[in-house]
Amino acid sequence: MKILALDSSGLVASVAVMENDNLIAEYTMNYKKTHSQTLLPMLDEVKKMIELDLSTLDAIAVAAGPGSFTGLRIGSATAKGLGLALNLPIVPVKTVDALAYNLYGTDKLVCPLMDARRNQVYTGIYSFAKQENASDYQLEEILPQCAVELQEIIEKLNTLGKEVIFLGDGVTVYKEKIEELIKVPYSFAPASCNRQRAACVAALGEELFAAGKIQTAAEHEPDYLRLSQAERERLEKQC
Amino acid sequence: MKILALDSSGLVASVAVMENDNLIAEYTMNYKKTHSQTLLPMLDEVKKMIELDLSTLDAIAVAAGPGSFTGLRIGSATAKGLGLALNLPIVPVKTVDALAYNLYGTDKLVCPLMDARRNQVYTGIYSFAKQENASDYQLEEILPQCAVELQEIIEKLNTLGKEVIFLGDGVTVYKEKIEELIKVPYSFAPASCNRQRAACVAALGEELFAAGKIQTAAEHEPDYLRLSQAERERLEKQC
Repeated sequence: MKILALDSSGLVASVAVMENDNLIAEYTMNYKKTHSQTLLPMLDEVKKMIELDLSTLDAIAVAAGPGSFTGLRIGSATAKGLGLALNLPIVPVKTVDALAYNLYGTDKLVCPLMDARRNQVYTGIYSFAKQENASDYQLEEILPQCAVELQEIIEKLNTLGKEVIFLGDGVTVYKEKIEELIKVPYSFAPASCNRQRAACVAALGEELFAAGKIQTAAEHEPDYLRLSQAERERLEKQC
Repeated sequence: MKILALDSSGLVASVAVMENDNLIAEYTMNYKKTHSQTLLPMLDEVKKMIELDLSTLDAIAVAAGPGSFTGLRIGSATAKGLGLALNLPIVPVKTVDALAYNLYGTDKLVCPLMDARRNQVYTGIYSFAKQENASDYQLEEILPQCAVELQEIIEKLNTLGKEVIFLGDGVTVYKEKIEELIKVPYSFAPASCNRQRAACVAALGEELFAAGKIQTAAEHEPDYLRLSQAERERLEKQC
């Protein structure tokens, strides 16, 4: 199968095209431009470079949240537009799961941290496990993606008592606090694998597609995990 | 420091710009075009997208071999040209090391396999180790990169007796033979992390740069590990 993957859940914008076991193209950027300036031009560039006939795609995978509200809307709107125009299913991939997939094959726990502002992180705890006789590892959720305070996730890791690798833009924000609170062996992923990559969305998207976990373009909407600022303020006024 | 990284050692063409802990951009392609059609246009695209002022670069890292002879020449020629024009040092990164770096943080052995034709693979055996109190893992060579027959590297892995993850285009060519010969637990890396990535060249390049392992653009040349077909045939005629 051939899958187009998009991730604009954080500061990173990333586009990938994967066909079975081949990453045909991936274009990733983490630069001070808005996703509205980058995501579609990047997709257009990739499309030209690999002479991609969009009608040969089987699905569109998208990092479907949590993340930056505007970023998620741009990613999902792009996926929905393409899905409607091309009559393709959308495969929503959990943002934090895709981030964790950067550390494929590690025996340590993986703890992605995305800065969620308001003193919270989007995070989760993951491991990789291999079934007997399987030829590859599967990502397993130990704690599914959630929005919590840093302290809460670190306490959970301390309770689990296993070595952990942190990654994500939350590391930059909370590095000192992590080092202060963590009681288990830990490390930080290097720049080559510490941010969102559409290739990870594509790889997990292929698995979800095979398991039938798809949506129509009309059905699809991002999963913000939290209320937006506007919704929060409206609720506060109502109380 | 800000580093530009290039990898055109195999079928993949890949360009990355990394600044300290931030992968600013990465563009990777594995498509039936020659590197002379892709590498410089990709670099030019990235340069425009991230408004890169080439004079702000500190070094150019390049996958310096082994690999496709033509691919290595295009990568090294590009690096040398930029290095001469911008008066920047070249950081040669071993191709197989950079490929292994895809599996950062795994506790298994890592065995990259690049199809080297003539019944050989470019390969090596690696692991990741962390010094006490270090905040990240280092890539360690158990068997440095070399050109051998598949059987030889599999026998070495069987002797080591540890679980291994294979990656690289050699897996596609030799999958059945691997499954036939291997006696230790094994798996194959998924498409998101089974080929060359310039981000891995950049990450290792930063470490080598910090250790002073640099060359001038004039000094730099790729390390083919083997004689070219033309050189081999000349030698055979002389015998």
